[in-house]
Amino acid sequence: MKIVIVGGVAGGASAATRARRLDERAEIVLLERGPDVSFANCGLPYYLGGEIVDRDKLLVAKPSLLRDRFKIDVRVRASVESINRASKTIMIRYLDDNRTETETYDKLVLSTGAAPIVPPIPGVDLPGVFTLRDLRDVDRIHARLNSGIKRVLILGAGYIGLELVENMVRRGYDTTVVDLADQILAPFDKEMTTPIVEALAHHQVGLRLGRSAKRIEERGGGLVATLDDGEEIAADLVLVGIGVRPESDLAKAAGLAVGARGGVQVDDRMRTSDSDIYAVGDVVEARAFVTRGARQIPLAGPANRQGRIAADHILGRDSKYRGSQGTAIVRVFDVVAAQTGEIEKTLRTSGLKYEKIYVHPNQHAGYYPGAKAMTIKLLFRGDDGSILGAQIVGADGVDKRIDVIATAIQARMTVFDLEEVELAYSPQFGSAKDAINMAGFVAAGVARGDYPQTQVEDLAAALGENGVILDVRTIDEHRRGAIESAIHIPIDSLRNHLNELPRDRPIVVYCHAGQRGYVATRLLRQEGFNAINLAGGFRTYRMIRPESAFNEER
Amino acid sequence: MKIVIVGGVAGGASAATRARRLDERAEIVLLERGPDVSFANCGLPYYLGGEIVDRDKLLVAKPSLLRDRFKIDVRVRASVESINRASKTIMIRYLDDNRTETETYDKLVLSTGAAPIVPPIPGVDLPGVFTLRDLRDVDRIHARLNSGIKRVLILGAGYIGLELVENMVRRGYDTTVVDLADQILAPFDKEMTTPIVEALAHHQVGLRLGRSAKRIEERGGGLVATLDDGEEIAADLVLVGIGVRPESDLAKAAGLAVGARGGVQVDDRMRTSDSDIYAVGDVVEARAFVTRGARQIPLAGPANRQGRIAADHILGRDSKYRGSQGTAIVRVFDVVAAQTGEIEKTLRTSGLKYEKIYVHPNQHAGYYPGAKAMTIKLLFRGDDGSILGAQIVGADGVDKRIDVIATAIQARMTVFDLEEVELAYSPQFGSAKDAINMAGFVAAGVARGDYPQTQVEDLAAALGENGVILDVRTIDEHRRGAIESAIHIPIDSLRNHLNELPRDRPIVVYCHAGQRGYVATRLLRQEGFNAINLAGGFRTYRMIRPESAFNEER
Repeated sequence: MKIVIVGGVAGGASAATRARRLDERAEIVLLERGPDVSFANCGLPYYLGGEIVDRDKLLVAKPSLLRDRFKIDVRVRASVESINRASKTIMIRYLDDNRTETETYDKLVLSTGAAPIVPPIPGVDLPGVFTLRDLRDVDRIHARLNSGIKRVLILGAGYIGLELVENMVRRGYDTTVVDLADQILAPFDKEMTTPIVEALAHHQVGLRLGRSAKRIEERGGGLVATLDDGEEIAADLVLVGIGVRPESDLAKAAGLAVGARGGVQVDDRMRTSDSDIYAVGDVVEARAFVTRGARQIPLAGPANRQGRIAADHILGRDSKYRGSQGTAIVRVFDVVAAQTGEIEKTLRTSGLKYEKIYVHPNQHAGYYPGAKAMTIKLLFRGDDGSILGAQIVGADGVDKRIDVIATAIQARMTVFDLEEVELAYSPQFGSAKDAINMAGFVAAGVARGDYPQTQVEDLAAALGENGVILDVRTIDEHRRGAIESAIHIPIDSLRNHLNELPRDRPIVVYCHAGQRGYVATRLLRQEGFNAINLAGGFRTYRMIRPESAFNEER
Repeated sequence: MKIVIVGGVAGGASAATRARRLDERAEIVLLERGPDVSFANCGLPYYLGGEIVDRDKLLVAKPSLLRDRFKIDVRVRASVESINRASKTIMIRYLDDNRTETETYDKLVLSTGAAPIVPPIPGVDLPGVFTLRDLRDVDRIHARLNSGIKRVLILGAGYIGLELVENMVRRGYDTTVVDLADQILAPFDKEMTTPIVEALAHHQVGLRLGRSAKRIEERGGGLVATLDDGEEIAADLVLVGIGVRPESDLAKAAGLAVGARGGVQVDDRMRTSDSDIYAVGDVVEARAFVTRGARQIPLAGPANRQGRIAADHILGRDSKYRGSQGTAIVRVFDVVAAQTGEIEKTLRTSGLKYEKIYVHPNQHAGYYPGAKAMTIKLLFRGDDGSILGAQIVGADGVDKRIDVIATAIQARMTVFDLEEVELAYSPQFGSAKDAINMAGFVAAGVARGDYPQTQVEDLAAALGENGVILDVRTIDEHRRGAIESAIHIPIDSLRNHLNELPRDRPIVVYCHAGQRGYVATRLLRQEGFNAINLAGGFRTYRMIRPESAFNEER
């Protein structure tokens, strides 16, 4: 068995080492166009920012290790130019001497990755304008950063863009970030990004949303980017991180089936339309775990798993890829945001029916120092309680909760199961009713129809012509900021003031985080009022309408 | 509906508030013998240690809140003396004025908790000897600590005992801890406690295992405890934390069924043998989630859930308790240990067949600063891969991994599922192949029979009469400490030295953490050698036999 792997990072390296562990006799050739295999792409921004000091640390497995430990025929600076499926051969060009060579394969694995998208604007090829994909890019950017520059412009406010922002600010550069969308972090629903937008402002990062660069020019020794609204932003370095596209040209040229967004189509064994050719990692069109829809998911975890599965299947094992949840996490300054499964934006366009809840629990016991609230948005089916997706934003403990929900989605658990999961509690790490249980309680209550809730965006509809808004928080909380026109009756005296509330009109109840609102809603409904809880309370309201709370509340 | 709840902490308070949310009309009486309801027991050691400064923070919900927000008839210092099941009444004694009163109930909920066990030794009632259950205890201990004392003796090295040790050391007291068992932290397998034993030594804590105090005397203004081997330990304060027993006297006197260890027996709706009487929390005999066996599990999480379920069932909802996994976590200095499900000690006595693996993955990407290994011990069934239990010891990220496995157990996932779970990866929070995936890979490999492994305790048997031990680590690692008599061939040159290995004798291969050992084992077996991997490598070996590695290795 001769296995040839094209691309030596993440999925490719995983496929190679897995194949060797399964079969000591297989001939395994690993071809990488760049000079490095198996490097830590996700570490590149932190090396630029100086948090990772030792460049060598980014080389997870060097060619020598793959050769010595795994007997893999590693060839770097080896570019595969074409595939001849009929003869089961490929044509390799060695970039050092431009020599070409034909190599045979029994099974071919394509792990060619995804390339940064470069916007087609004038000046994008100027010195000082960079994309970030590999260590060569990093070395060039590093050199520029160390040449005494002051101002950095980042195009794209996605995962990599924001990680670059944090790292540029850490090194003291004046930093501006521009994104075409009306929000940062497109893989999240907009309201969940509000805490990061606030953190960017807090760190004096310039943020331009709904804008794009139209051209970049050299002027006075530096660069000037002109945005579509005419604003000019001066910078000494421009980093482009507006997204990636699958590097599927090789596959396309060979006539392999490719999806609408350019990803190579594969079955659940990672086989392409040619059963002797597999594809793994960022180059493939993945299947979304929850909806089974096609999706480009350029993440290292899925790439590694896919590589392993391709090797398994090549060597006679019946492993199957289950699909990608898109579980991902990013830290921007002191804010951590994470998600798994579907987000509301995609559910809305998919036509799938869903419910959503917000909770704002602490990461650990409130009585222990350092307790801080996070926000969990949970998307689920109202009929059977299936979990469709979750997004969490906060600080400590966000990673834990997203991983628990990611596991729950993998197990096809429901919101009723989240009520019951038994997680570890001691004051430093959780609560007797963990954040996950709280999300489960609220979602299960909605799914069971225990009480109606309205979303902030549906508030006007819920109020109708004559509805009232009832704030059940304390006097102090109410003073610090409230929804306009709200009646205020603190929950602990609500039973004594029932006669002040209308019995014939909708009452939308809210508190800070939704919990007291829920208690009040239950109370009022049992007393015959048409009460509706505002999902996630005032804290969610502020995330959705950061500009509209009439007082500042922090 | 009149619901009377005996005991106002955790399970009792949860039952009361849940009942109110479900039924605004119910009459709900909450009786608590002490002065406080719903206080944070798990915070008490940290208040003693000064990490929690404000005593008021320990009062999670005061009687006034339960009255005002939930219309609950809260009575503190109200001791329930007896239950008359025939007349459905209880007799209450009010401790402030010794008045007694008969109260009726439709449904009764017992949440009487568990009491600290006091060893029957002379001197245990001296001033200066305390147990720790509630805020009154804390106030008395606080007073003693602030009276200029220096030396603290703690009897019992369980969760509370070790939390007390940490907090006493934080405050600068000379601290000694004694436990009758041959290990600390009985809910863990012994080898998993080795890092905590090392941390205790590092912080100059005196540790006496396999010993017990025979008597305590006042001598020279202080206390002296004499152990069973005659050693005398002088102390100014003795804290007793050797365990708890269910406070089931009230239930027993009423003729309710009680288990072998004194816990009140309940069905999965938390009903006792009298269908009008429920019991929740530390007083009940819980059912273990994995084995369905009877178990005393005094933990706040299960208590809260049970209270909620009892209220649900009383008010016509069909909630069921699924059983307790015993998920728990403790931090001792900079070491964190956590567990969920079954441990090996109980599996061994249960007769259930199980497999075990150890892995030592980092909490996050190795290339990002601060990466540190944790140890995961996973117990599972070899036939179908069902997860039976897990223990993890390390620092950062232990809480996350135990919660993921706790969720996996709740979902009845297998080790094959752990291979596939898609967790959040960025350099600060995980790895493309997360610690959980690594545990899954290794366990699934064992379950699939990809390679044989031997446990450290079975090493002699695996070697037989003429087996050899093969160390495949680097020269540096080998020099820093190795298993006696091991042959040393670094893995990266193993293929060149195959002729130095015997083909007719067992070869037990080991590396640092088990992974290179696995690669070498696969290689050797495919080359015709009878190779066996040492589970968890040298790091596990050192945890099991901390005294026997012939060099120090850290």
